[in-house]
Formats: sequence, structure tokens, C-alpha cells
Amino acid sequence: MSRPADTIAILGLGLIGGSLARALREAKFCNRLLGYGHREPSLRRGIELGVIDEFTLDLDEVIAQADILVLCTPTLVAADMLREILPRVAGSSSGPIITDAASVKGSLRSAAREACNGEFPPRLVLGHPIAGSERSGVEASSAQLYVNHRVILTPVPENDTAAVELVRAMWVCTGAEVVQMEVEMHDAVLAATSHLPHVLAYALVDALAQSDNSEDIFRCAAGGFRDFTRIASSDPVMWRDIAIANRQALLDSIDLFSDHLARLRVAVESEDSQGLHDTFTRAKEARDEFATILAERSQKGDS
Amino acid sequence: MSRPADTIAILGLGLIGGSLARALREAKFCNRLLGYGHREPSLRRGIELGVIDEFTLDLDEVIAQADILVLCTPTLVAADMLREILPRVAGSSSGPIITDAASVKGSLRSAAREACNGEFPPRLVLGHPIAGSERSGVEASSAQLYVNHRVILTPVPENDTAAVELVRAMWVCTGAEVVQMEVEMHDAVLAATSHLPHVLAYALVDALAQSDNSEDIFRCAAGGFRDFTRIASSDPVMWRDIAIANRQALLDSIDLFSDHLARLRVAVESEDSQGLHDTFTRAKEARDEFATILAERSQKGDS
Repeated sequence: MSRPADTIAILGLGLIGGSLARALREAKFCNRLLGYGHREPSLRRGIELGVIDEFTLDLDEVIAQADILVLCTPTLVAADMLREILPRVAGSSSGPIITDAASVKGSLRSAAREACNGEFPPRLVLGHPIAGSERSGVEASSAQLYVNHRVILTPVPENDTAAVELVRAMWVCTGAEVVQMEVEMHDAVLAATSHLPHVLAYALVDALAQSDNSEDIFRCAAGGFRDFTRIASSDPVMWRDIAIANRQALLDSIDLFSDHLARLRVAVESEDSQGLHDTFTRAKEARDEFATILAERSQKGDS
Repeated sequence: MSRPADTIAILGLGLIGGSLARALREAKFCNRLLGYGHREPSLRRGIELGVIDEFTLDLDEVIAQADILVLCTPTLVAADMLREILPRVAGSSSGPIITDAASVKGSLRSAAREACNGEFPPRLVLGHPIAGSERSGVEASSAQLYVNHRVILTPVPENDTAAVELVRAMWVCTGAEVVQMEVEMHDAVLAATSHLPHVLAYALVDALAQSDNSEDIFRCAAGGFRDFTRIASSDPVMWRDIAIANRQALLDSIDLFSDHLARLRVAVESEDSQGLHDTFTRAKEARDEFATILAERSQKGDS
């Protein structure tokens, strides 16, 4: 039986790209996995680990050889790569399909349009797997990373339908649950559930670290604080880039949150027992419901 | 060998009180553990489980029989209990030692002074074990709950030194690490590391639950969001009471945090890469250092 694709190129071979390659190999989705990147040691390691079959440091070779290019780099690097790749394939309706795994979609859509004189390239399908791990790098990659995780695709009206369907099929074969939404919705949802919490955790830890009592504060903090601030240990460069790439949606989220916090502050100041109780109860109910959804997903194999 | 105390009364037999009773029994710190509370079923269960030896629903009996009264109730209930107990023992320099496990200390100090015509009762030693569990009730109690956890005592100048030392010895025998700090410092530290994070988590979840995209938001949220919002599943009544009892310190914490968030917002808005990078990096370093402290503590047996 013929496979859906001949050669798939993974551009940026870390946890995300390596895990995709492993899952594609297990699912026999393509005949050949080609690695590309700027760090030769990671690519060599990828071959040793059996994650990819070959690698190249030459972008033209990737474009010439692959049916699908998957950009598995952080957000700003993905935008730079699009600016390099798109001028070389523009106008070609038979060139490779290009997709990505970056955290912000609006900034990539803009980068793509700019690189193509204002026209969105039909064979570029923007996407975002909602998966990760505390570990990073190709060494930590796993064929199971995407099982029962969401992958959000954000096709635009200009997209070639066959290209979208092939990218969807690629993610489905990794065990992911693929959903589609508009670029703006994706960026708003991710700002709310991921980018804002990171900013809040960074802000809290930095505020406390700079306060006069910082030593006592960290000495006396316990498990709740540990969980709440875990994401403040995330990579500062990656999160700086995401904050800037998703600037407007993040600002909107910060404002929504700040309004809510200001209202809670008033309730505390005025000792408004009922108001505090109502807000805390609504929040607990929503959080408990969310925990139920997550638990159901994890029964299906999510981690 | 004689034990440090004859009878210790646990007022409020839930996770905190039950775990203390179990630890005191294991350490042979006293001859008899007496339970007191308003919920007879919990007290009966405490006897069945071997957590306490006897119980009474009569406060005068507790005061007459116990050497140490430990108030193991939520903050506002502890204040009410102090108002009931202190008038009955006031002026007695040989009456029972009283201590507590509530989350806020300033409000209890005020309640105690009010109940004693402005004089702080020398044999009342305010304290707070920084321990808990996702489970609650006497069924979940464990003699190990306090091992390597901090217990903060907040003695005041009026305190009887022998009373403070006996309370310290009581907590030391549970395996806890006992530290002392001033009431104001305790309330500021707890506001920063516990009360503020709870308010932030409640505010975030409530803001998102009320937004138009709430369904997509919760459907697409992942592990980082789960950890960040876990504390929003906490008991709304308990946290409403803590927010009001520690009102001023919590307001100060909210203001400190809001200032920091506002500065980060400006950095995002103005695309201040360097500013974002510096803040995120400082926060990551502080959080990583905190994780190291916690890991060292957990090697000593903390959970």
C-alpha cells in the first residue's frame, strides 16, 4: 500500500520535531524522514536514535526533496524560516506543503503574506500541537507525545484544501485529536490558557524575589506555590518571543485578568464576604469541571 | 520517663488536628488525647481510628482537663473559639496553654486582645503549620503530615516563655521544622506565597469562565494551565475567610503584584524585548532556586 507522503522534512529537530518524526515512522506515514537545522550535532543524534533517516544543512535541498516541510522551531525562528522558504517556492502550485508547530499563528500569517507580496501561499497550513514536556531536545522525543493531545489547525480561505487535508491526516496518524479554528481564535485561546498564565507566574515570582522578605517568602512557601509557579521555570527566550508575537491577544488577556483582579481587590478591601464567596465558588466550579475534562482525556491515554 | 504533657485537647478534628493527634501519640508526647468539636460523628470516628482517646462536646470540660488546647479550625472559627475560651481562663497563670493552627495570625491576636480587655493572654501561643493535603477530614489524617514541614510560631512580647517552649516542643516532636517570626511578617509571607496565589488563580479561572470563548478555552488548555489553576479548586468558604482575616497584607500583596504586572504589560505593549527577557530570566532563576530548596526538603522526607 502506498504511503500518504514520500519524504517529510522536519525543520528543527528538538522534542516537538523529533516526536513527530518518531510518530510518523511508527505510523508508516511516509517513506523517508529528512532532518534540517542549524545544529548539526542534534541532527547527527537524530540519525543515531533512528528518529530521522538523513539530514541536510542546505535549505534548497529540503525544498527540492520533501513533500511536506514541518517547521518545528520556536515562533520567531519559524517566521524567519518562512521568510527564507516562501520566496523560493512562491507561485508553485506543485511545490511542497509547508506547515508548522509554533505557538502563535497570527504573526506567522503576517510573515507569510509579507514574504509573498501580500498573498497567503495556498500550500502553507498553519498549525499548533498543544503538547510539550518538562524535558527538551531530540533525546526526549517520543512517538507517544501527541496521543490524545489537541492539534489546532488554522486554515485560511486561501488554503489549498488538499494541503489542509494532508496535514490533518499527518497529525491524526500521531494519535492527536485535530481541531480547526480561526487564527484569531487560536491566538486568543492560547493567550488565555498559556501565554497569560506564564506572564502571571513570571510577574509573581519576580515581584516576590525583589521584595525585602524574599528569603523568608521562598523558605516558607509550600506545595501550592510550587504548582502555581512551575511555569515560571520555562525558557525566558521562548516566552519573550511568544509574548511579542502574540502581543495584542496577550494584552487583551492581561486587561481582562487585571479587571477581574481589581474587582476582587475591591471585594477584599470592602470585606464583601458574599462577593468573594460567589467569585471563589464560580471559579471552583469551573476549575472542577475542567479537571473532569482533563481526567477523561487522560483516561484515553493523555499524560 | 514522664511525658511533657498529660492531656492535650484537639479542638476541631479534621486533617490538621487529626494528624497532630496521631503524631503526638506516636511520639508519646502526652498521656491522653481529648477531642472537642461541634460534629460528634467526626469525634466518634476519631476514637474508632485511634486518633483520640476521648471526646467531649463541653468546652468547660476541655478547659478543666487539658494542659494544652490546640485550635485546629479554620481562621474565623478559631477567632470565635478564642472569644469563647479566653474569658473563662483570663487572669489564670496556671490555666491551660492555648495554641492554634490557623492561616492568619494578626486577626487572632486582635481577637485575643479584645477578649481580654486589651491585654494579650501570656499562655496563648499563636502558630501555623504550613502543611495540608488535597484530602481533608480525620480519615485523611497521618502522623507523618508534618515531617520536614515548617511550623511558624509568632510569639509576642507578652508571652510566657515556658508556654512558647512547650508548644515548640510539641511541634518538634511531630517532625516539623519550627521557626519563629513576628505576626506581621507571618501574615505578609503567607499573603505572598499562599493567599495571593489563591486570589490570582480564582480571578483567572473566573475571568476565563465568564468569557465568550470559555468552552474553547477550557477544551484547549493543557498541563501548565492545570498546575497553575489547581488551587482554584480550594474551598471557597475557607479562602473567603482567609482573604478577609488577612485583608491588609493581602491588599499589599495584590498591589505589589499588580504593579509588576502593569510593568510587564508596558514591556509587552512596547515590544521591549530586553525588558521582558530580563524579567523572565530573573523569575526563572528565582523559581529554579526555590525548586532546589524544595527538592532538598523533600529528600528529607517532605511530600
